[in-house]
Amino acid sequence: MPVPTIEWKSGKIKLVDQTLLPGRFKYIYLKDLKSLWHAIKTLKVRGAPAIGIAGALGVLLASEKSGAKNYKAFKRELLRSIRYLASSRPTARNLFWALERMETVLLDNDSISLKELKMQLKREAFSVVKEDKLICRRMAKRGVSLIKKGDRILTHCNAGGLATADYGTALGVLFEARKERKGITVYVDETRPLLQGARLTSWELKRNGIKTILICDNMAASLMQKRGIDKIFVGADRIARNGDTANKIGTYNLAVLARHHNIPFYVVAPASTFDLSLSNGKAIPIEERAADEVLGFRGVRTAPSGIEVYNPAFDVTPYDLISAIVTEKGILKKPYAKNIKRIL
Amino acid sequence: MPVPTIEWKSGKIKLVDQTLLPGRFKYIYLKDLKSLWHAIKTLKVRGAPAIGIAGALGVLLASEKSGAKNYKAFKRELLRSIRYLASSRPTARNLFWALERMETVLLDNDSISLKELKMQLKREAFSVVKEDKLICRRMAKRGVSLIKKGDRILTHCNAGGLATADYGTALGVLFEARKERKGITVYVDETRPLLQGARLTSWELKRNGIKTILICDNMAASLMQKRGIDKIFVGADRIARNGDTANKIGTYNLAVLARHHNIPFYVVAPASTFDLSLSNGKAIPIEERAADEVLGFRGVRTAPSGIEVYNPAFDVTPYDLISAIVTEKGILKKPYAKNIKRIL
Repeated sequence: MPVPTIEWKSGKIKLVDQTLLPGRFKYIYLKDLKSLWHAIKTLKVRGAPAIGIAGALGVLLASEKSGAKNYKAFKRELLRSIRYLASSRPTARNLFWALERMETVLLDNDSISLKELKMQLKREAFSVVKEDKLICRRMAKRGVSLIKKGDRILTHCNAGGLATADYGTALGVLFEARKERKGITVYVDETRPLLQGARLTSWELKRNGIKTILICDNMAASLMQKRGIDKIFVGADRIARNGDTANKIGTYNLAVLARHHNIPFYVVAPASTFDLSLSNGKAIPIEERAADEVLGFRGVRTAPSGIEVYNPAFDVTPYDLISAIVTEKGILKKPYAKNIKRIL
Repeated sequence: MPVPTIEWKSGKIKLVDQTLLPGRFKYIYLKDLKSLWHAIKTLKVRGAPAIGIAGALGVLLASEKSGAKNYKAFKRELLRSIRYLASSRPTARNLFWALERMETVLLDNDSISLKELKMQLKREAFSVVKEDKLICRRMAKRGVSLIKKGDRILTHCNAGGLATADYGTALGVLFEARKERKGITVYVDETRPLLQGARLTSWELKRNGIKTILICDNMAASLMQKRGIDKIFVGADRIARNGDTANKIGTYNLAVLARHHNIPFYVVAPASTFDLSLSNGKAIPIEERAADEVLGFRGVRTAPSGIEVYNPAFDVTPYDLISAIVTEKGILKKPYAKNIKRIL
């Protein structure tokens, strides 16, 4: 039973505070851009499609709250809001994609009334949410064809309902497999440093009645060697024109291990994840986050003070290691450069 | 300045309680076998060579405390103690190796006085400690030849002074490189679930003035791809006749990543780590530990309740992925089956 991760509610943005999970499931209501920016930055809302939605709803929030009396003032105000939201996190393409959609509506409608323009912006933001729900279900239907009965599947981080409006990308495929009674077992990387796998993915899978086994990230190779893994499914934060894919740190590790053990490695991501302006993954901006995330967990310090840390939030998996990319428009195979262009 | 990790002190076993590090450096004094067994089991003392020493000193403790009046009773008592200590942890070869040394002294001396036998056992246990110090320094001298000026090195778990009597296996090599002013940078895997890398290795490296950068285990591939790693050095818990090597979970991950990125992968381990009774690594018993270690850290719960866990404490790296094995008797290269036999 999908529950909304993020939606518009009586003039506010309502979202699940994911930093409290799995201990507590709690909605928070945001009524200003600063709180939203902070919620994105601190991962109260996270997952590429979900922060795209947050971006669209953020622009809607700015629009609804604006007291501007004319288009020029309104435009200046909203463009500033868009820039501000864009500064929250650098890697996921979907945030910029959603902000660009809102910006296009703003810029293309300079000759209608402000009231009408605000209505249009609202319609566009609602479309972003509605489409995400539809797209995730479409990807799930397509992706499930890759899953055989009894498959042992490994996933990383959280590409579930919590990373989207309500259904998920990679996990959507697994929910669909469950519906079709394929009897899958899903191993979940805990995904240090912020443990989205342990905290969010295992919570979602369990709620959906899927057999779930949690591992530490460094146990993946042992798992492949000793127990056997049939497939890997992950989400994506940004995909370049050649198929190079940025996703949560540790994804590239898995892709290399998958290659070594001859395990198919699948990425599940909506078209909004693709950045056709980048010829390859080297140009994808990778967010580096605070050392504190690695030095401990929830206030429990685990390393000596004064230790330097390397803490990239994402890595880039070269296209060559990816077996297929599941999108709402079809399952893409190599050569990606050609097939991405054709389908998108 | 090496400090003793474990030693005999006025009839007790004195050891650093490693579960308190890096917050607190504290010696504890054990005067009965049950406390020692518990200290090994809960990783107050850990690291293959160090638990070998713990085993030898444990037999010494049993011997010193024995009130047996004749050889037969004494032998029965000590054999029981040896079996008990052997049940603490299954994977590290060094524990059994040290217990076998003590057992040999016990069984070979059935015709001397109990007082004399106890003296012999004490001498043997002290030899185990003394030899470890010597052997680690010898491995360090040999291994340092593999390190070039400015090398960026990655290590996993803790193969340092804390894993031995006082100097370390893999880290011993790095300490030697530091002495020779090779200007190395060492990246340290935090090593979930018990974080020996974050807690112990970064603490040891920093104390020794080595440039240290901490990462989460899943960042290793990104590190290799983006920053570059020149060499990997790890310890070992048991090495089979063909060179297959059991070491802390995550080692095999690294070895696969190293192969993919063309990075030399070195194991540093004393001769006591080799188990010539095993033709390959498949037969090495791998300890699986409690789910709680993965479900949280130090009382902070991070996963939903009722989630199943896979928590092997070690994995086995196939010999083919290992570039060389540094021992006190020389640096072993392929073919290992032949060279291990020749040198040991």
